[in-house]
Amino acid sequence: MVNVAILGFGVVGSGVAEVLAGHEDSIARKADGLIQLKYILDVREFPGSPFAECFVKDFAVIEQDPEVDIVVETIGGADMALDFTRRALAAGKNVVTSNKELVATHGYELTQLAMEKGVCYLFEASVGGGIPIIRPLSQCLAANEILEIYGILNGTTNYILTRMIRGGLSFETALKEAQDNGYAERDPSADVEGHDACRKICILAAIAFGRHIYPDQVPTEGITGITLADVDYADGVGKKIKLLGRAIRRKDGTVCAYVAPHLVDSNDPLSGVEDVFNAISVQGDAIGDVMFYGRGAGKLPTASAVVADVIDVAKNMGHRKAMCWEPGGKDAVRGTDQLASHWYVRAGVAAETLRAALGGKLLARRGSGEGEAACITNESLTRVELDEKIAGLNPLSVIRVLN
Amino acid sequence: MVNVAILGFGVVGSGVAEVLAGHEDSIARKADGLIQLKYILDVREFPGSPFAECFVKDFAVIEQDPEVDIVVETIGGADMALDFTRRALAAGKNVVTSNKELVATHGYELTQLAMEKGVCYLFEASVGGGIPIIRPLSQCLAANEILEIYGILNGTTNYILTRMIRGGLSFETALKEAQDNGYAERDPSADVEGHDACRKICILAAIAFGRHIYPDQVPTEGITGITLADVDYADGVGKKIKLLGRAIRRKDGTVCAYVAPHLVDSNDPLSGVEDVFNAISVQGDAIGDVMFYGRGAGKLPTASAVVADVIDVAKNMGHRKAMCWEPGGKDAVRGTDQLASHWYVRAGVAAETLRAALGGKLLARRGSGEGEAACITNESLTRVELDEKIAGLNPLSVIRVLN
Repeated sequence: MVNVAILGFGVVGSGVAEVLAGHEDSIARKADGLIQLKYILDVREFPGSPFAECFVKDFAVIEQDPEVDIVVETIGGADMALDFTRRALAAGKNVVTSNKELVATHGYELTQLAMEKGVCYLFEASVGGGIPIIRPLSQCLAANEILEIYGILNGTTNYILTRMIRGGLSFETALKEAQDNGYAERDPSADVEGHDACRKICILAAIAFGRHIYPDQVPTEGITGITLADVDYADGVGKKIKLLGRAIRRKDGTVCAYVAPHLVDSNDPLSGVEDVFNAISVQGDAIGDVMFYGRGAGKLPTASAVVADVIDVAKNMGHRKAMCWEPGGKDAVRGTDQLASHWYVRAGVAAETLRAALGGKLLARRGSGEGEAACITNESLTRVELDEKIAGLNPLSVIRVLN
Repeated sequence: MVNVAILGFGVVGSGVAEVLAGHEDSIARKADGLIQLKYILDVREFPGSPFAECFVKDFAVIEQDPEVDIVVETIGGADMALDFTRRALAAGKNVVTSNKELVATHGYELTQLAMEKGVCYLFEASVGGGIPIIRPLSQCLAANEILEIYGILNGTTNYILTRMIRGGLSFETALKEAQDNGYAERDPSADVEGHDACRKICILAAIAFGRHIYPDQVPTEGITGITLADVDYADGVGKKIKLLGRAIRRKDGTVCAYVAPHLVDSNDPLSGVEDVFNAISVQGDAIGDVMFYGRGAGKLPTASAVVADVIDVAKNMGHRKAMCWEPGGKDAVRGTDQLASHWYVRAGVAAETLRAALGGKLLARRGSGEGEAACITNESLTRVELDEKIAGLNPLSVIRVLN
């Protein structure tokens, strides 16, 4: 018998309780023993909940109960969640979480603490919702040197972009629709400014490349500047605008990680990833390209990933499964300055002026006025090289082209 | 120090030796200790090989050496490979394999034997080459009831179909090209008749649904009957012909598994999977749809999946990781008789005759002669229901439409 405590009875936490209760028999079979939900920590009252007898308000009850083997942290954020996670690990309890902010900012410390205490700190649900990615990356691709990871890591922004591309909606209208459908928060900044994708690429980069990368080391650009004009110009050459998190291992061992919109070609499987779906592409020296695709968020998908970690801990109880990496630092990361690529540029100038400056292929869209033009550069350029060429051209949009 | 013996120095076996040698340091780091290649079993001579001192010709040397912890079986087939695998497990050695035929036909017996002996029998490389699928399915999706698995499981046939669809080549010409490029064997029947995909869907079904499914229980149809006419008619309605392995859990707990060509809609991510790539789609009750995509074959991708299993064993040495299922039997499987779907039918009759019989949407292609017509049925029908409707209509092709 393995006892579980859930911290936070929000969307994911209540989903975990439901999955544990709804699949009790098959989970027991897979975990080689019964998994019992003993506590749920939440400050709120949930009268009539089928889990009513589990609720407690004081974390110390969980911390001091030697019967609790696994703590599921679904509080979110890096305040209370950090305190409780530290205390749970220090008390010798395994911790499973979906909290990407906590892993991205304190993952190094927490995995070290888990290792010292001989327990697990697992976070499959922190990236890609229910899509299996953390375990495949750390285990199944272990015989590869990972060269690059990139992907659509945020479902909200992918939904908004899909509605702009397929529905012709403006960013503001698409965001409103996403909010009405429950895909975006009332304060959407963590999603639309790219911070959520940033945390996820930090976690993926740590596992793939072996050193902690902090969110504040990752240049992050969201989708608030994307206009329908950009969407239409891209469409004219068979490309779609997608918000990507990307981490590349450089030859000197440093990692170039960033979040930004990209023009993605229709031949790339990522271009077909629509609505709230996520997809993560991994390039290894032996495997080549592999891609993982599915629902990147949502109550049950995310909860099912949390419960898979719980089953894994329960099945291997007492047998440490270390997932750890080296500490971060300034020398772990290089900026995007040296990362050359082709660029999409939209500028408030005549077409011939833009062509003269960049020499690339001019793009067309319906309804473009005079005094506006867009092109994709012929050459692969760093951002500094590009900026030199477009200085004085009144650039309205500048977006990287993927590969 | 963990000692490895490789059985069979063919494409995959030599790839395993290369990956182990080429990534020695990073593998040692991930496995918490050095992994040493001690023996390679092959009847042939490999003078000048960098692994020359490892070669032995007698399996008993490996079987009786207590220092050998892990046996990598890359012999293929179910004769010698079965004998050596049994003996290795019986001698208390862990076994890792890429041999789908052996796992599909004797997987139940071998996983049971491994469990009795407290060792591992792992086979991540047996399905999807280097694509992580076995471990994600058995671990990451453990909190789901799997409802259905289907996918493009054979790279050779997908290459041939891609060349027919995009290059306008006939089946015979595309097969010849695949052989010239090393993507198809001189005797291509295991691929083009669907047997390879059949073995893989058996393995996936066993893991997903918990009972052994034998290849001879799975109705299997290859791609030898697919013509350019079919490809063109499908293209006219935005669909592509793909060879799919498919396993569906029925409400009564039985599994309906089969291999056959399908018309796949362009909205389905599988339709974009081209050339030798594989993709596997899994539907779980909590996660919804997830898809895994990558190179399904090839020396290094497959070898990297084998080595990932080796690392997993080495890291968890002495700690049994059971992957097992219940025995098979007639009651585990139901045929496809009850599986209704829409159907593509091409027949040697006038268009109006076909429409009158099936009431579906007539399809068009360039160069279709009189006395030939094709349509997709309006109704979802079982095969028996369909056959009644098209009796006497001189059907030339009958292909299921996916969903």
